[in-house]
Amino acid sequence: MAAANGPNKENKRAGGVGLPSNPMVTPLLTDLYQFTMAYAYWKAGKHQERAVFDLYFRRNPFGGEYTVFAGLEECIKLIANFRFTEDDISFIGSSLPPSCEAGFFDYLRNTDCSDVELYAISEGFVVFPKVPLVRVEGPVAVVQLLETPLVNLINYASLVATNAARHRFVVGKSKLLVEYGLRRAQGPDGGVGASKYCYMGGFDATSNVTAGKLYGIPLRGTLSHAFVSSFLSPDDISVKSLLSNDGSNVCQNFVSLTQEWLSKLKHSHILGGIFGDTNRSELAAFISYALAFPKNFMALVDTYDVMKSGIPNFCAVALALNDLGYKALGIRLDSGDLAYLSCKSRKIFRAIEREYRVPNFGKITISASSDLNEETIDALNKQGHEVDLFGIGTHLVTCYAQPALGVVFKLVEINNQPRIKLSEDISKVSIPCKKRCYRLYGKEGCHPLVDIITRENEPPPKVGERILCRHPFTESKRAYVVPQRVEELMKCFWPGRSGKDREELLPIKQIREQCMKQLEQMRPDHMRRLNPTPYKATVSAKLYDFIHSLWLNEAPVGELR
Amino acid sequence: MAAANGPNKENKRAGGVGLPSNPMVTPLLTDLYQFTMAYAYWKAGKHQERAVFDLYFRRNPFGGEYTVFAGLEECIKLIANFRFTEDDISFIGSSLPPSCEAGFFDYLRNTDCSDVELYAISEGFVVFPKVPLVRVEGPVAVVQLLETPLVNLINYASLVATNAARHRFVVGKSKLLVEYGLRRAQGPDGGVGASKYCYMGGFDATSNVTAGKLYGIPLRGTLSHAFVSSFLSPDDISVKSLLSNDGSNVCQNFVSLTQEWLSKLKHSHILGGIFGDTNRSELAAFISYALAFPKNFMALVDTYDVMKSGIPNFCAVALALNDLGYKALGIRLDSGDLAYLSCKSRKIFRAIEREYRVPNFGKITISASSDLNEETIDALNKQGHEVDLFGIGTHLVTCYAQPALGVVFKLVEINNQPRIKLSEDISKVSIPCKKRCYRLYGKEGCHPLVDIITRENEPPPKVGERILCRHPFTESKRAYVVPQRVEELMKCFWPGRSGKDREELLPIKQIREQCMKQLEQMRPDHMRRLNPTPYKATVSAKLYDFIHSLWLNEAPVGELR
Repeated sequence: MAAANGPNKENKRAGGVGLPSNPMVTPLLTDLYQFTMAYAYWKAGKHQERAVFDLYFRRNPFGGEYTVFAGLEECIKLIANFRFTEDDISFIGSSLPPSCEAGFFDYLRNTDCSDVELYAISEGFVVFPKVPLVRVEGPVAVVQLLETPLVNLINYASLVATNAARHRFVVGKSKLLVEYGLRRAQGPDGGVGASKYCYMGGFDATSNVTAGKLYGIPLRGTLSHAFVSSFLSPDDISVKSLLSNDGSNVCQNFVSLTQEWLSKLKHSHILGGIFGDTNRSELAAFISYALAFPKNFMALVDTYDVMKSGIPNFCAVALALNDLGYKALGIRLDSGDLAYLSCKSRKIFRAIEREYRVPNFGKITISASSDLNEETIDALNKQGHEVDLFGIGTHLVTCYAQPALGVVFKLVEINNQPRIKLSEDISKVSIPCKKRCYRLYGKEGCHPLVDIITRENEPPPKVGERILCRHPFTESKRAYVVPQRVEELMKCFWPGRSGKDREELLPIKQIREQCMKQLEQMRPDHMRRLNPTPYKATVSAKLYDFIHSLWLNEAPVGELR
Repeated sequence: MAAANGPNKENKRAGGVGLPSNPMVTPLLTDLYQFTMAYAYWKAGKHQERAVFDLYFRRNPFGGEYTVFAGLEECIKLIANFRFTEDDISFIGSSLPPSCEAGFFDYLRNTDCSDVELYAISEGFVVFPKVPLVRVEGPVAVVQLLETPLVNLINYASLVATNAARHRFVVGKSKLLVEYGLRRAQGPDGGVGASKYCYMGGFDATSNVTAGKLYGIPLRGTLSHAFVSSFLSPDDISVKSLLSNDGSNVCQNFVSLTQEWLSKLKHSHILGGIFGDTNRSELAAFISYALAFPKNFMALVDTYDVMKSGIPNFCAVALALNDLGYKALGIRLDSGDLAYLSCKSRKIFRAIEREYRVPNFGKITISASSDLNEETIDALNKQGHEVDLFGIGTHLVTCYAQPALGVVFKLVEINNQPRIKLSEDISKVSIPCKKRCYRLYGKEGCHPLVDIITRENEPPPKVGERILCRHPFTESKRAYVVPQRVEELMKCFWPGRSGKDREELLPIKQIREQCMKQLEQMRPDHMRRLNPTPYKATVSAKLYDFIHSLWLNEAPVGELR
């Protein structure tokens, strides 16, 4: 298919940035009102006025106190390739009232983002509410058009990366985590995006082949219940021979060899009495899979009954493979009591290792994948389990516990005039004017203490200096901080005509490492699942005063009713 | 951008079916294990065995008792264009163990869906748990590869169409419903898909320009808070003239005309005392928007204060427009107490209609769009409100109340042998063998009574005949039904080589009408929000007996632990 190549082709247009992963990401991926407003700006002769917008969110998701910032690279790709085709323009024309003047469409025809500047926190960083993740400066009409796609591209990306990081946190570092969510995702690139950003947030691999191809994410996959039940009986297997791993001899009848092992196990003290006749479909499926992948034999053991069929069949095939010098990789449990089944399976594998002297048989990988989420994994941890690899789908990719983040994009300055959006809900008041953001680190520079937002022209906080950090809206909340390290958070990712250096877009593996490092350096009380301590995003004393004078200026005096 | 045209281009490949909306939908949009299994089938010489898979779900979403089936057209487009490129094949090769034989890749090279048959319920139909929505027959290896993309394409589509239908149900027929969710959707085509399927489920329009372009869905859009706060003062408006609607005269200073009206309103008994000085940014923004769109003037009235600024400013501009023969369209409320604000606004509009003899001013459209969902709209209905148009975003498109449906795809037959997937959880046992499904209608053929699944070779239920309908798994649950109308549910949408006629894919507007009709004909007790009556999906007596004999045959005898 033509389409399959599109997203992957390394088109180095627009200064080496490349095209968006999803060809649907174009300047038309926006709300109609961005065009009606652009027209009204144009008609008022105001479209070139320089505006500054902040992109941020107001609350961390999943009841936590942190968020992983993701989606930036796709935003830069959109901006780098932001041009309307004639087809686009004629469609926009047909969607606006017929009275709109032709001059506006000429303007769109010549519109791109060469006059836009974008500053952002690096992708994979841990971020907090109210702190701008992205600041976009440029002609108000163009930046307005960018609002919807930028919010779209960052909202879900950051949400699912955070969800992945939270799953990694509860699973711990030593286990493997694989994302299995494509089929349950919200549409095709709900799936592909999930794979990308779950990897970024700490997963090890995905089952999603398109994501593997687009982003180089490691792929994992074995077999399903349909495969297991598609075979009828070992008698139907026609090619039964298998070359040994060292190539020295051929086992003429691998089916018989497996059946001998099954019979041995049936009468052994390890599995004896646990099972009678195992399911023959399943046995045939396992043997066939082993014949196809003797070096990569994995078995899904719960199609009929884990203990009475799946485990004995798996062990028989694995022991037969062992006779030919192959090591079975492991089993997957996709239903039932995972704590009990994994521990019991482990015990059997260890007993087999001892009984039949099969080195490392006790360490065979046990995978689990049964509608898992943070809570079920936490419960498994508490019960004790022997699972080595978790495959997580629905809850991870749809962010079942909270399926939207609520990123917003607010005008904070136009023509050098600060702007504020008021609201009866204080948490919805925007922080006006062009700003800078810093992360202040504590003793030995290891843990971040607080983020502080300043006006753009304020001198930056200095190491060793006592700095007053204030809650942006609550007068009484403030604290002095003496930072041991100061990190400016926003960097220039799209310089427009400013002549500044453009921050490089890192390969996904590096972003992933950056993210892991960021998560590790957070103080543990911010990260814990139960009642985490909020990490504070604050403003400088100057910015505090400025916000409040502007606020008073704009707000009408209230009236009770 | 090249990409913008891609999805829209009416490529009539593959028998006039066209390309998938999203170019990311390719045969690689699948799980890796579909390829490992395909290889194992191939290696066992089993890949061409004819398999039958059923696609269905197990529980209706959102605590309801119905689901809208959607996503079929995209599935057919995937199937019609199902071919691997050389690039795909080399990527698959690099993702499988190096021991895989070259013959398999030759097989993939020649693989398409010409030997696959797909039967499905029509898109937009109301559907129920356990009844197959789609049945796919074909070579087991190919159908297995189709599993992930088919489930992905139907899962979210059906979920969000159902969510839209539920929102329409609670809003009622007389109100306008607009989908505003793109920015909060799970990725770009989470947004585009939402727009498509929300329209199908009963929405009237979307804000999403790409969806408008791809599917011809009506577009809606006005202005945002950023626009309102981007103006400083009416004094800055340079071009102040406005031609009257009939072209007969030019108002040289529309700004003054508005300000005169504002002053008049300030001292009127209608708004007198409610407001003092309105916000000047807002006034300038409203005037500018009116100058750009005199025939389409809408105002977002909550940027500063609805009653003390937004409404007076809107009324002043609307009355000035009225002087020139234009009718203002309406207002949008995006925060606050929507019941109170909409009723109070309506009262003011009606008073203005009377006081200043402005026909229909009292009927001006009041739109609301503040994080709405089924519950908040239900609460608004109970309180009483004057909202004419609801704009719904986050909760609708992310399906916040339940973000995944849980569609599955199960092998039910291979080589004419029935297959069953067992589970300790009875609701997860699959219904084996190739089947037909019928909807039986009651008196006068108006309401569906029950769906019944039969074996493929059973004679179909007949009108007027007494039919025993059984719960598939619970012996005691059964009922006799005498249908007044019998409708076979699954039709052939992809005939493969069978020579059957292919069911036509309908334009989205027709699917939407079909869906509305389907929803209307359901008995009201199945549709109500609180404690709806379950609609029953049943099996024929023959199928019941068949399932249970197979089940006993495959299931090992249990053991307590």
